[in-house]
Amino acid sequence: MTAHPASAIVKPYLVFLGDVGDELYAKTAFGLRDWVPGACIGQRRLPGCAVDLGVPDMTPAQAHAAGARTLVIGVAPVGGALPGHWIPELLAALQAGLDLASGLHQKLADEPTIAEAARRFGRTLHDVRHANRSFPVGSGTKRSGKRLLTVGTDCALGKKYTALCIARELQARGIDADFRATGQTGILIAGDGVAIDAVVADFTAGAAETLSPANAAGHWDVIEGQGSLFHPGYAGVTLGLIHGSQPDALVLCHDPLRREIGGYPQFAIPSLEEALETYLRLARLTNSSARFVAVALNTSKMSAIDAAAEITATGKRLGLVCVDPIRTGVRAIVDLLQGEYEDQTATR
Amino acid sequence: MTAHPASAIVKPYLVFLGDVGDELYAKTAFGLRDWVPGACIGQRRLPGCAVDLGVPDMTPAQAHAAGARTLVIGVAPVGGALPGHWIPELLAALQAGLDLASGLHQKLADEPTIAEAARRFGRTLHDVRHANRSFPVGSGTKRSGKRLLTVGTDCALGKKYTALCIARELQARGIDADFRATGQTGILIAGDGVAIDAVVADFTAGAAETLSPANAAGHWDVIEGQGSLFHPGYAGVTLGLIHGSQPDALVLCHDPLRREIGGYPQFAIPSLEEALETYLRLARLTNSSARFVAVALNTSKMSAIDAAAEITATGKRLGLVCVDPIRTGVRAIVDLLQGEYEDQTATR
Repeated sequence: MTAHPASAIVKPYLVFLGDVGDELYAKTAFGLRDWVPGACIGQRRLPGCAVDLGVPDMTPAQAHAAGARTLVIGVAPVGGALPGHWIPELLAALQAGLDLASGLHQKLADEPTIAEAARRFGRTLHDVRHANRSFPVGSGTKRSGKRLLTVGTDCALGKKYTALCIARELQARGIDADFRATGQTGILIAGDGVAIDAVVADFTAGAAETLSPANAAGHWDVIEGQGSLFHPGYAGVTLGLIHGSQPDALVLCHDPLRREIGGYPQFAIPSLEEALETYLRLARLTNSSARFVAVALNTSKMSAIDAAAEITATGKRLGLVCVDPIRTGVRAIVDLLQGEYEDQTATR
Repeated sequence: MTAHPASAIVKPYLVFLGDVGDELYAKTAFGLRDWVPGACIGQRRLPGCAVDLGVPDMTPAQAHAAGARTLVIGVAPVGGALPGHWIPELLAALQAGLDLASGLHQKLADEPTIAEAARRFGRTLHDVRHANRSFPVGSGTKRSGKRLLTVGTDCALGKKYTALCIARELQARGIDADFRATGQTGILIAGDGVAIDAVVADFTAGAAETLSPANAAGHWDVIEGQGSLFHPGYAGVTLGLIHGSQPDALVLCHDPLRREIGGYPQFAIPSLEEALETYLRLARLTNSSARFVAVALNTSKMSAIDAAAEITATGKRLGLVCVDPIRTGVRAIVDLLQGEYEDQTATR
């Protein structure tokens, strides 16, 4: 693992759930519980909270005494603004010695009482949806080390989950690998990263270059994809991330039942063939040996029988490894990485 | 012409040249003189200035008395920072009743004495390299009106110039058309626009949608392109601009003598065939009837004979109208727009 930069979010976490009424709005909290369970030593729930992570309830002071170093806001209030009645809880956390981390649109640092308390108690505020540093313009210069990027036929169909699974499987096999987070939940899981969609457009590729710096020849960076080249609002972000990531290996994430780009009913999901060709054509600008190693299907809305048939048929049709990270795991992908990049994939 | 929004830069201009030593650093000033000559009623030069626009020298007070409403910084100091000895001149301009407009990296609004004087005298500061409003995520929804976008095989080879020429030719023929600026010099020429590369990445396509809003069916927006899909640092900006602009017509700008992306010697300029195909494939996501209407060559470094031969051969090879906006003008492009989009192109 690479050392964290100074701005990394310090674990373990107290996960703040506020008074959230539905698990739908607690995706970040569940992502943390599932992916860094050892780092979630407690939850803080206010009266009315209808969600339970299954970890001990703690006040900020109790959590600090138990070793917690950061309170992470694990829920997304509708609209992304910070509810006023949460502020006393956040101030208490700062006073108890905890840093704060938030993926809300509204920055903690823009709330004067919170900013002032953080200064007074010497604590750090992490607004992970906002870049806290400046980046260079992308250089296009090839870096040492290996990189895998997940891309998708749409948003919100498993790019983060797939990247986390692959990074974990590489690490489980003793291969030197890092998950590189590009969105708020991924950053809270990893403890650092770059919210790539919050970077000023000119510097998107440069930010992606910064995110996966030069590394040992056999080291793998497994980079969380964002957006989709087929999304009318976000394709530019996706392209900057591809160019800056210079992926050697690409994994295409797809939901076989989805027909339209989410929230954009007039935009059809592309065929897998079209997606593979378009991504590869553009990725080869900054890495001429970029190639697809697998397709990762999200078959969560299909029966087990249908899913198995879809996975088999898709792999056969495209001549690619095909998995569902949840149903089948990603061993087949990592087998391929180990086999085909073997001489350059380092065991720790 | 469309009414300017409240944030438009008010003409006429006093063009500030400071003590610039070389015309190379006064590109914005010459762009203004060439494209909005009637709006440049004077120049302000400090001791040591080696550049002359050929318009009367004026103090800010004289310029205001002659009708000027904005002092525009027409030069780019190396590094983009505001030289300290310019500040008294800028304060004098505010006191004389002029707004200030700047394309420097360093914002005028971040210089406390300037910000304070602007407040005191009720003047507006235009930092055109920085977005002064927020934008939505791109919707992909088709807007009425016609749009032409210039794109390129690289940066800095004539995309702005070509768009300005086409807009002027359309207007000269009485066709309702607007030049839509996406970079600092273009914004100062047009009086408004969006510095597209300064927008947060998530909102690039949305900013481009905002820049060319729904319009009369026969109205043409002629949009200044930015970057290149073949540029390892800026391609994401280019793609967001394409998707948000939803161009009906594309013009590919190219320098026949350039072999490498400027400043990126390891990146070859693509063939025109590859560029046409890649741009079109991506543009069709948000406008399925997008097509190339012309290639605009920048033959400024070629002899007249070589240039003419290149223009003829390129047009023949690609089966497209081919021009050099400076040598041949853009009449052939506008003839085609009038001919092929005739029923939908309105005369004012």
